[in-house]
Amino acid sequence: MSALIGKTGIVVRNISRVQQEVIDDLGRLGVATVHEAQGRKGLLNTGIRPIQQGVSLAGSAVTVLVAPGDNWMFHVAVEQCRPGDVLVVAPSSPCEDGYFGDLLATSLQARGVRALVIDAGIRDSHTLREMGFAVWSKAINAQGTVKEVLGSVNLPLLCAGQLVNPGDVVVADDDGVVVVRRDEASLVLAAAGKRANLEEQKRQRLAAGELGLDIYNMRPRLAEKGLRYVDSLEELEG
Amino acid sequence: MSALIGKTGIVVRNISRVQQEVIDDLGRLGVATVHEAQGRKGLLNTGIRPIQQGVSLAGSAVTVLVAPGDNWMFHVAVEQCRPGDVLVVAPSSPCEDGYFGDLLATSLQARGVRALVIDAGIRDSHTLREMGFAVWSKAINAQGTVKEVLGSVNLPLLCAGQLVNPGDVVVADDDGVVVVRRDEASLVLAAAGKRANLEEQKRQRLAAGELGLDIYNMRPRLAEKGLRYVDSLEELEG
Amino acid sequence: MSALIGKTGIVVRNISRVQQEVIDDLGRLGVATVHEAQGRKGLLNTGIRPIQQGVSLAGSAVTVLVAPGDNWMFHVAVEQCRPGDVLVVAPSSPCEDGYFGDLLATSLQARGVRALVIDAGIRDSHTLREMGFAVWSKAINAQGTVKEVLGSVNLPLLCAGQLVNPGDVVVADDDGVVVVRRDEASLVLAAAGKRANLEEQKRQRLAAGELGLDIYNMRPRLAEKGLRYVDSLEELEG
Amino acid sequence: MSALIGKTGIVVRNISRVQQEVIDDLGRLGVATVHEAQGRKGLLNTGIRPIQQGVSLAGSAVTVLVAPGDNWMFHVAVEQCRPGDVLVVAPSSPCEDGYFGDLLATSLQARGVRALVIDAGIRDSHTLREMGFAVWSKAINAQGTVKEVLGSVNLPLLCAGQLVNPGDVVVADDDGVVVVRRDEASLVLAAAGKRANLEEQKRQRLAAGELGLDIYNMRPRLAEKGLRYVDSLEELEG
Amino acid sequence: MSALIGKTGIVVRNISRVQQEVIDDLGRLGVATVHEAQGRKGLLNTGIRPIQQGVSLAGSAVTVLVAPGDNWMFHVAVEQCRPGDVLVVAPSSPCEDGYFGDLLATSLQARGVRALVIDAGIRDSHTLREMGFAVWSKAINAQGTVKEVLGSVNLPLLCAGQLVNPGDVVVADDDGVVVVRRDEASLVLAAAGKRANLEEQKRQRLAAGELGLDIYNMRPRLAEKGLRYVDSLEELEG
Amino acid sequence: MSALIGKTGIVVRNISRVQQEVIDDLGRLGVATVHEAQGRKGLLNTGIRPIQQGVSLAGSAVTVLVAPGDNWMFHVAVEQCRPGDVLVVAPSSPCEDGYFGDLLATSLQARGVRALVIDAGIRDSHTLREMGFAVWSKAINAQGTVKEVLGSVNLPLLCAGQLVNPGDVVVADDDGVVVVRRDEASLVLAAAGKRANLEEQKRQRLAAGELGLDIYNMRPRLAEKGLRYVDSLEELEG
Repeated sequence: MSALIGKTGIVVRNISRVQQEVIDDLGRLGVATVHEAQGRKGLLNTGIRPIQQGVSLAGSAVTVLVAPGDNWMFHVAVEQCRPGDVLVVAPSSPCEDGYFGDLLATSLQARGVRALVIDAGIRDSHTLREMGFAVWSKAINAQGTVKEVLGSVNLPLLCAGQLVNPGDVVVADDDGVVVVRRDEASLVLAAAGKRANLEEQKRQRLAAGELGLDIYNMRPRLAEKGLRYVDSLEELEG
Repeated sequence: MSALIGKTGIVVRNISRVQQEVIDDLGRLGVATVHEAQGRKGLLNTGIRPIQQGVSLAGSAVTVLVAPGDNWMFHVAVEQCRPGDVLVVAPSSPCEDGYFGDLLATSLQARGVRALVIDAGIRDSHTLREMGFAVWSKAINAQGTVKEVLGSVNLPLLCAGQLVNPGDVVVADDDGVVVVRRDEASLVLAAAGKRANLEEQKRQRLAAGELGLDIYNMRPRLAEKGLRYVDSLEELEG
Repeated sequence: MSALIGKTGIVVRNISRVQQEVIDDLGRLGVATVHEAQGRKGLLNTGIRPIQQGVSLAGSAVTVLVAPGDNWMFHVAVEQCRPGDVLVVAPSSPCEDGYFGDLLATSLQARGVRALVIDAGIRDSHTLREMGFAVWSKAINAQGTVKEVLGSVNLPLLCAGQLVNPGDVVVADDDGVVVVRRDEASLVLAAAGKRANLEEQKRQRLAAGELGLDIYNMRPRLAEKGLRYVDSLEELEG
Repeated sequence: MSALIGKTGIVVRNISRVQQEVIDDLGRLGVATVHEAQGRKGLLNTGIRPIQQGVSLAGSAVTVLVAPGDNWMFHVAVEQCRPGDVLVVAPSSPCEDGYFGDLLATSLQARGVRALVIDAGIRDSHTLREMGFAVWSKAINAQGTVKEVLGSVNLPLLCAGQLVNPGDVVVADDDGVVVVRRDEASLVLAAAGKRANLEEQKRQRLAAGELGLDIYNMRPRLAEKGLRYVDSLEELEG
Repeated sequence: MSALIGKTGIVVRNISRVQQEVIDDLGRLGVATVHEAQGRKGLLNTGIRPIQQGVSLAGSAVTVLVAPGDNWMFHVAVEQCRPGDVLVVAPSSPCEDGYFGDLLATSLQARGVRALVIDAGIRDSHTLREMGFAVWSKAINAQGTVKEVLGSVNLPLLCAGQLVNPGDVVVADDDGVVVVRRDEASLVLAAAGKRANLEEQKRQRLAAGELGLDIYNMRPRLAEKGLRYVDSLEELEG
Repeated sequence: MSALIGKTGIVVRNISRVQQEVIDDLGRLGVATVHEAQGRKGLLNTGIRPIQQGVSLAGSAVTVLVAPGDNWMFHVAVEQCRPGDVLVVAPSSPCEDGYFGDLLATSLQARGVRALVIDAGIRDSHTLREMGFAVWSKAINAQGTVKEVLGSVNLPLLCAGQLVNPGDVVVADDDGVVVVRRDEASLVLAAAGKRANLEEQKRQRLAAGELGLDIYNMRPRLAEKGLRYVDSLEELEG
């Protein structure tokens, strides 16, 4: 499969998607919990930031490879989208042009697409927020693009430091974006749910004033590593 | 005119401004539309970001060249401002000090100045938002400046990668900042208005579910470039 | 004292703190005013940004040195905190991992800690905002950390370009973060209060339309430095 | 295979390598030619720079995932290396610590390893150059690391924006680093050799003063796109 | 003239150049001296670095605007070059692709072009050094470009933060690149020569151990500003 | 002492220096070894790079705080220097102007100063290399500075993320710069010497083909942490 990364001139029409219920539950659990639950892999780099605040969602990745400064493939990709999808876009070499604005958002919204994740720039940011179309991007940039060079749709894609396969689940919130492999989604959901429950219990104990040092029984291991408590700075300097 | 770029020690008292109505209309159309309408030129680099959200405006540029870490010229510039102006400031070498705070904003507001665009830092960001004084800047930085070295006011200025002439129209919104040449403002406004109308029509068709592929008749040219549709990834790998 | 910077494996239990009233007053005056009042020193670099908007506060620094990708010392530090403290954290080499999330925030909030200042990443940003736990950080990043390597608590710390001693006062708002030496806090408060009063007077004059050029009597010195007023650009080019 | 990306705690002992002759020929052709020949994919991002000048080579990738600030896996990896290999290393979250110095280089050199490619920092740069051990890295940094946390050896690895599988061919020179899939290496070599020959012919014609405009017959298409020649700037402004 | 900045689809055939002798003398004086002599203007930003060491030169600017990821205009520009020219290239939006390699260098060298200055990437860096073709660029990057979109040749160009007019003199050395207006070149040369002579005299006095404090008579003004000499740190702390 | 950080308007005439022999030995051991030997503290951030290659040295720090874009204090500092010193310079807010060139280098060389370490820019880089005056800087930049604002000489200084006291030992080579506290220099030298000897022994064993896994007895602890060896990738996927 890795030989397909970076290929251009191809559109894959049919991709397998995860059951919608699993996707929605992953979206509710959020990026940090899901990322932990799957063994700390799949996190897009931190340069990809939400243009809105307080939105948490998940969807099936429709992947789009674009040429630098060229958004032609967006129009090709729209046709391949279904309700519940998230468009995941990366340029073949780094570019921060504004590939995407309110017209494309209108078109995607009409097809039920939930969000855009793009390792490049977008524009019309104010209108996008007003429309309620969620975006995670690398830049906000009014610089437009051309439509001259082919990319691809629904091939495996390297986006912001991660491999995204078409149909993988993309989870996004104020913390960023994480990708979950399609065939691991159910397992990850189970692990994430369990983790969320455990965290809720710990939250209550911590809120009541218990210390993590005691809850996690850290004191013996800290002592073993040689942690030394002193009464004051003066004691160290004297 | 290009020989004046970077000169210091000069204040130009009278500058020509565009008719206020044209300026206001450009402000309503916004950065992305105006930038497109004038052939994709004049966009300040994306490092210049608004400190507030949801403000869209335009004004006549009063240009200010300042020394690094020295905001003396701001006080000189205030006197040259009129209602409807936007102060456009750049340091003679890169600097992110906080050149500007609530006192200068009060002074500019008293003269009817609409906004500050600065390729450097500002401070008192919370108060500026409360005052409703709009700012687009490179940084938020409490580090103050001195008043020792001359710059210039109302000479042509290189600011964030663009040439800004005094009296040029500066349009700014959540997407960033674009400059429109004074003698092109009316033409650009006409083109931008036309563009906005066309976009509105397309928006309605896209919202109704029509595809850009069809609206823009892209399919033949995509085929000509060799775009190939396959039914599944397996088809490619097999 | 400088020999203690960077040491690991030590926790100092007792630190001297400034009188709470002084701390609270510094928090009300804000970063820019306090920074000016103490002679423009102690400002953390501008990469440290608030994850919320409109919060201004101050507290006593509890300093924490952590290893890259390792948040073990947070749990050790919680035990050393008192109401009114601010946790100030720096990694021993640059790291943007998400060291801190809602569980640790719950624990700190239970002890009355006011905020976190960290030269690294945090996660659960949405929940932190909902909880009202204030954070100034270098990054928002869901990437978690391990608990394997010792750091230190309450030793002098280099954080975001500044030396922070335990018990120093940390002032933070939308402009960033400034540190005030414990034994200078009262003097700085007095100077900052005086400065705020003077600024208020100037604000009223500026709001009434007076020019800084006149209020500060700048015109003679500008002339002496050779500032030249011309009527128009054409005059310069002719 | 993509489910293995980011896993830790595993060492794969046996990997398939490309025939040495093919590897060496790819090294002679260099990064730019090989990258073009395989359809412009596989190029590591430009932050990975050589610490020496004038070295061009290729080798079989032995992949190493390391924790931030932790170089334990290097020692595990050395044992898996054979003559002609190139160590390809990436941290599980961004880190610029100096993971690698002259001792590890001595150990790798003793096993016939040709080079290190690392999306992190190295140290002892002067000694490495003197030893003739080639390195492409993200940073030069004396900051050392610990040996506490497991990573992996010879799993698929995301390094500097690219997927590298163990046994893929890594080509590196003054321009940077490109990865060639193991099962595409022969095809890529054939295409690269052809391309180098064509370029040599063009080089001679260009050196003799022929224009690319004519060699590539660009004039008709430029005219069709509307390129307009004018005699002088004055003609445009008049 | 400023309305031409950013226009595309135009090639200007004839540009005025400065007398070769003046250009060569500016090249010998170097960037720092020339920049000072013209009042500290015209310096390209420091991201533009030489790929070689120890080369100092000057030439007449042939300006080229290119689209992101598209080097078509290079071929158009070659035809407009004459011996002694320097190609000055900027993309219409930021891009670090490798626009330029050894074939284009061969073509430019055949026409007597001295160097390339580009606010983007180049490749074949080792071969370029071997050929002795001098380059100042923003990046070294094997990523190739396409030939689909028109730019312009010999219009005024914004490159790395400066306005460059066709025919302006470009001076480049290990310190970077500075542009001198065509009609100011002779005056700048005279001022630069004078400055170099003065510096030579000062160099001899400084080498002999005289202090700048005395040569420039700085002591009285330092005292007036309040500089205070103390005998030891202890004196300050006591 | 920390209250003196950031103060301006003061020159301290007499500073204590470490014995020259100790300094010279530290210089020979180099940055990585010295940094390790003192417990991994004192390393300047990696943005400070040498402008030359292959120079390794050490000296007594003469510290200089300068205003942004203002190099006046260099001239004041020269007078305080003695043979064997290294000038350590930082701006009071970030600035990359070219503070330093061949004239100041001539003056420092005349007084026996060994090098400049500066968290800002320098110019005349080619001449500095020819003169053999060693420099570690943040940028190379022809942009000059003014002489208007006081800084300080020989106060404690925050430079590139580290505290440097006057008289501390600064060690610099191709890896960067590390500072050693004056009163720890002898201890650090002893530890560094011991470390260098141990490394030499290990180097010989590694060169002979022994593995670090065995020399450091890592296998049991790796197994305890759960490291798992598999024969092939297929084994994992099956």
